Amino acid sequence: MKKIKVGILGATGMVGQRFVQLLDGHPWFEVTELAASEQSAGKTYEEAVAGRWKISADIPEYARKLKVKECRPNLDCKLVFSALDAAVAGPIEEEFAKAGYAVSSNSRNHRMDADVPLLIPEVNADHLGLVKVQQKQRGWKGFIVTNPNCSTIHMVMALKPLMDWFGLDKVMVTTMQALSGAGYPGVASMDIIDNVYPYIGMEEEKMQTETLKLLGRLNSNSTGVDFAKAIVSAQCNRVNVSDGHTECVSVKLSKPATERDIIHAFESFNPLKSLKLPSSPEHPIVVRTEPDRPQPKLDRIEEKGMASIIGRIRKCPVLDYKFVVLGHNTIRGAAGAAILNAELMKAKGLIG
Amino acid sequence: MKKIKVGILGATGMVGQRFVQLLDGHPWFEVTELAASEQSAGKTYEEAVAGRWKISADIPEYARKLKVKECRPNLDCKLVFSALDAAVAGPIEEEFAKAGYAVSSNSRNHRMDADVPLLIPEVNADHLGLVKVQQKQRGWKGFIVTNPNCSTIHMVMALKPLMDWFGLDKVMVTTMQALSGAGYPGVASMDIIDNVYPYIGMEEEKMQTETLKLLGRLNSNSTGVDFAKAIVSAQCNRVNVSDGHTECVSVKLSKPATERDIIHAFESFNPLKSLKLPSSPEHPIVVRTEPDRPQPKLDRIEEKGMASIIGRIRKCPVLDYKFVVLGHNTIRGAAGAAILNAELMKAKGLIG
Amino acid sequence: MKKIKVGILGATGMVGQRFVQLLDGHPWFEVTELAASEQSAGKTYEEAVAGRWKISADIPEYARKLKVKECRPNLDCKLVFSALDAAVAGPIEEEFAKAGYAVSSNSRNHRMDADVPLLIPEVNADHLGLVKVQQKQRGWKGFIVTNPNCSTIHMVMALKPLMDWFGLDKVMVTTMQALSGAGYPGVASMDIIDNVYPYIGMEEEKMQTETLKLLGRLNSNSTGVDFAKAIVSAQCNRVNVSDGHTECVSVKLSKPATERDIIHAFESFNPLKSLKLPSSPEHPIVVRTEPDRPQPKLDRIEEKGMASIIGRIRKCPVLDYKFVVLGHNTIRGAAGAAILNAELMKAKGLIG
Amino acid sequence: MKKIKVGILGATGMVGQRFVQLLDGHPWFEVTELAASEQSAGKTYEEAVAGRWKISADIPEYARKLKVKECRPNLDCKLVFSALDAAVAGPIEEEFAKAGYAVSSNSRNHRMDADVPLLIPEVNADHLGLVKVQQKQRGWKGFIVTNPNCSTIHMVMALKPLMDWFGLDKVMVTTMQALSGAGYPGVASMDIIDNVYPYIGMEEEKMQTETLKLLGRLNSNSTGVDFAKAIVSAQCNRVNVSDGHTECVSVKLSKPATERDIIHAFESFNPLKSLKLPSSPEHPIVVRTEPDRPQPKLDRIEEKGMASIIGRIRKCPVLDYKFVVLGHNTIRGAAGAAILNAELMKAKGLIG
Repeated sequence: MKKIKVGILGATGMVGQRFVQLLDGHPWFEVTELAASEQSAGKTYEEAVAGRWKISADIPEYARKLKVKECRPNLDCKLVFSALDAAVAGPIEEEFAKAGYAVSSNSRNHRMDADVPLLIPEVNADHLGLVKVQQKQRGWKGFIVTNPNCSTIHMVMALKPLMDWFGLDKVMVTTMQALSGAGYPGVASMDIIDNVYPYIGMEEEKMQTETLKLLGRLNSNSTGVDFAKAIVSAQCNRVNVSDGHTECVSVKLSKPATERDIIHAFESFNPLKSLKLPSSPEHPIVVRTEPDRPQPKLDRIEEKGMASIIGRIRKCPVLDYKFVVLGHNTIRGAAGAAILNAELMKAKGLIG
Repeated sequence: MKKIKVGILGATGMVGQRFVQLLDGHPWFEVTELAASEQSAGKTYEEAVAGRWKISADIPEYARKLKVKECRPNLDCKLVFSALDAAVAGPIEEEFAKAGYAVSSNSRNHRMDADVPLLIPEVNADHLGLVKVQQKQRGWKGFIVTNPNCSTIHMVMALKPLMDWFGLDKVMVTTMQALSGAGYPGVASMDIIDNVYPYIGMEEEKMQTETLKLLGRLNSNSTGVDFAKAIVSAQCNRVNVSDGHTECVSVKLSKPATERDIIHAFESFNPLKSLKLPSSPEHPIVVRTEPDRPQPKLDRIEEKGMASIIGRIRKCPVLDYKFVVLGHNTIRGAAGAAILNAELMKAKGLIG
Repeated sequence: MKKIKVGILGATGMVGQRFVQLLDGHPWFEVTELAASEQSAGKTYEEAVAGRWKISADIPEYARKLKVKECRPNLDCKLVFSALDAAVAGPIEEEFAKAGYAVSSNSRNHRMDADVPLLIPEVNADHLGLVKVQQKQRGWKGFIVTNPNCSTIHMVMALKPLMDWFGLDKVMVTTMQALSGAGYPGVASMDIIDNVYPYIGMEEEKMQTETLKLLGRLNSNSTGVDFAKAIVSAQCNRVNVSDGHTECVSVKLSKPATERDIIHAFESFNPLKSLKLPSSPEHPIVVRTEPDRPQPKLDRIEEKGMASIIGRIRKCPVLDYKFVVLGHNTIRGAAGAAILNAELMKAKGLIG
Repeated sequence: MKKIKVGILGATGMVGQRFVQLLDGHPWFEVTELAASEQSAGKTYEEAVAGRWKISADIPEYARKLKVKECRPNLDCKLVFSALDAAVAGPIEEEFAKAGYAVSSNSRNHRMDADVPLLIPEVNADHLGLVKVQQKQRGWKGFIVTNPNCSTIHMVMALKPLMDWFGLDKVMVTTMQALSGAGYPGVASMDIIDNVYPYIGMEEEKMQTETLKLLGRLNSNSTGVDFAKAIVSAQCNRVNVSDGHTECVSVKLSKPATERDIIHAFESFNPLKSLKLPSSPEHPIVVRTEPDRPQPKLDRIEEKGMASIIGRIRKCPVLDYKFVVLGHNTIRGAAGAAILNAELMKAKGLIG
């Protein structure tokens, strides 16, 4: 099979670097284009990220000598992954979609657009149905598909099976989020050493709204999503962890459930199994039963960073159940999410 | 005024060291006795804590040469502060109370005993009324008064004014607790570097039960406490912070309240004002209005570590309001709490 | 005594904030002017540092409402402390000196100028003699005095008594420097969590050259400094510590010395004693004899951050002796250094 | 080829866990026995390390259900890897050697015995010649081979090519060592957060003496090692890093060398190349030319943790050259070292 040519927009940033790493040796996609800001354009990728490559494995060979280009829709590829900063992502992604590219975006700009799928393949694969409406309404040959915010993804991975089995009324979540989520240079070291930083701009709003679209239903004629009716309340904090968001969640369900039911719902959750997508984890949800797991340092690379790890499942005196969810924020929470989305698009015939 | 002679049980541990430091130059109390385990007994305090003194200020002069004794009720003092480990605190504290000592304890062993005050002076000073019952029932000349668990204290400081003004139905709290709360050596560095440790043994249970006793009412004949009816759900985590617990709280109130009402309730809370206790903070609750406060590194020493700092007050979509509470865990959350309790006992004529 | 009016240039940065804090209630100086970049000018100090005040004590009252001005020599004060960034400090400090201000600078720009004192009061107070030459040569009414780089100061505090007693031939030093030394935002958290950063631009060069000027002799007609003949080799690293530089030093002396001699040289070092400068530490050098001291967390605030702490004194198989020096980098290593310099100028009649 | 049966002594500790992980799927060795203290004996390995498994990958399948035994010489294997604590390693290792086992030990007890090889395969493979003398002198069927202390190994990897090409006179080293080097629970978190711990018991002595044996020559009749004549001075510190020791080294060479010569000596160093040992890194020394490398977070897993990474090579004003060496302390610095030693023994026909 001939590989599909793909490009990465915003390739030099933290999430861009993850795309570069995760796409190394990808069985379906071949990175032919790396694009970034004017300052980087014209340099080799190696030069462009000198002193800023923050992943412990070295820059993959394939990317070192690639010439970085500007983010204009003249790239030699069919699909672009967007790791662009929200300050510029909006119009650039639109230009690419207009020009016929498939855009798999990690940026927040179009996530809540009514005709743009906000996609987690295991959760709402059918929302891809919005692509047709999007193309028709906007007159585009290409299209935009987005993945959710990093902390939202892992929480929704946990909420979806609960909603399917027992209905979901209310969700309370307090997050302890990793530094890499803020990009590079991101959080100043003086702000986090011996500290908790109790605020992440717009993060609580994203968790409270994106969740409802993700858990919503594509309406009957596939023209929009009817948002889920649950209520979500989020408190978001930054802690001194490099990678891996930890989230303390409490849920109110619509129907009674035993702890065993809950565990079963989590462990049997594997809707993508038959598709055999290359980046799909064997177990999207991993349940740990030790009293002190999950921990970011020990569990974030489970399933190569593509799983959501759940532990400490127990009764909540105020709502019904509480538990801890952990997931890698720049893999499943960002670059890996967009790649899995692209794999689903390919499997569904939207690209290729 | 002649100072009251006091002793410290468990004087060599983390909380014991805080007692030693905070009582340096105390206007009402003079430390005449330091007691600890057999291994330390017979050494000077300086020798006993060699390599284990973990407070940045040096050992106070007064304590250096004091001979450490065993924890037996033959100490030359009227009151003992107990920083004993829960494994041994129970019977030792009882022996001291029986022998006529006032015991101001930071240990958990007797906190939930029906006839033992679990005391925060600003919250339930009248619970000291239990002392008489305790002495009568147990036939003791002395008595035991306890302070709550470190994470409970700061949360209850926030809950009390809310309950007084608006009634309190439900509380959800997720904590991010400091390392010093686990004593020394406590948390292994390998367990917390680049990590969150999502479990603290018995901590959630303590927050869920101690709170209800603290917010309860002394019954009409002062023989017991009618627990508050609120429901509390806690999720407790250890984070990489030396001192200062950060707690994300959501509350359901019985009556409607505006954000301004909430702030007013917090800021006007100062029931001890007229007593002028030496360790009493000028403002027991400090409200911060910046979006990113309180932070342990910046705010834990507010009011010399005796205040609870509250910030990020805002509506909670699931309950009514949510906010962040921060407080120093070994000062107001432990040693400082027991000292303030002793000051109240003195002011109320129970010792002196 | 009427206080001398002083201003702070670069008042909003990390070192500027330390000046603001340390000058609060200073017995000789009164801060009448705060100056910073154009962006801050016109705001109150409180507004200008909103979200950037990084010292755990709150902004001093006196500074909150002061209007921040631009760094132009029209300030109402006699002396300015300069915490300016090296990119702009050079010409601005010159303008102030030309206009008649005394400038006590923490910036590196003029440190190595032949007619500018590079000053540590305990080490080379007589270098203030250069001021006259400077004024004459440059035709200035005011003048510039500088303090050394943060890591150099504490090392030279240790080297000076050794040189005086035993002569000094060679010095090897490896530093483990604190984050606050890089300013704010400074070091990215992703670069230092679970890491050592083995490079600080220009730092090794500064330690290797500034040291020789500091330990040099004012020549006979006070027109210049004859540099010390010792050889210094430095390796500088950034470690995950907020404040306090730790330095492993080895020295080759000119004359034999016992360990007891070395300790005596350190402990008897107190050349400023009779001057009673307000910021002068009672013991400029504190020797610790425990095997595991000094430690930044425990020892950096010794003598309010104005001392250099030395420990682990022992034979070096390659040179003669080795030891560990620790000191607070933004207090004695920066703002406190410049304030002590200004106090010496006042005591010597250069200002006032 | 049939695999050689091997056991692990001290299998539950930090280094023991690394052995378990690194031997998973080893092409030459098959782990048939796991042994530890009495407390663990009788449990499955999974049970024995519950709550103490500190490697991010999960316990390998092969080890989970293995029954842990006591450390007695009745194990079904030919070779044992010893990760025993120094408090007990000495006599146990001797018993095993006496009983006919080959012992590849990471413990310090026998390292300096005159007839025990202290081995780094790339550095002094011929020291294996001591085995015969050892067996003869002690009347043992088996034998003991040791690997050096973690911080020594990486330094000596750098020193060996320098000595071979230019001769080596003096070495100064200051280390910044990782937490995992202290085992588990090891360093208390309260001792290292926002801190440097400037002391590691016996570490400086080990670096100063082991180095000379490692760089020494097997004498003509293979009965002992003539120690190298160089002088080594070490200062050892613990820093807040999980894995990877960083070492700032300065060397005095016997002959002149250019920077290019030094780099060539490092990069061409690969004496094991032809042996193709399974754990042998393709490049035992990796030279980085960026100004800010090596860094533990980015470089410790280079060559799967089996390489020594060298950077910042530059002139030293006091000695000749200085540079930074980094290496993984529990892989190449401990378990990986002992495994590579065993592979060399096999290649040389000492086992198998």
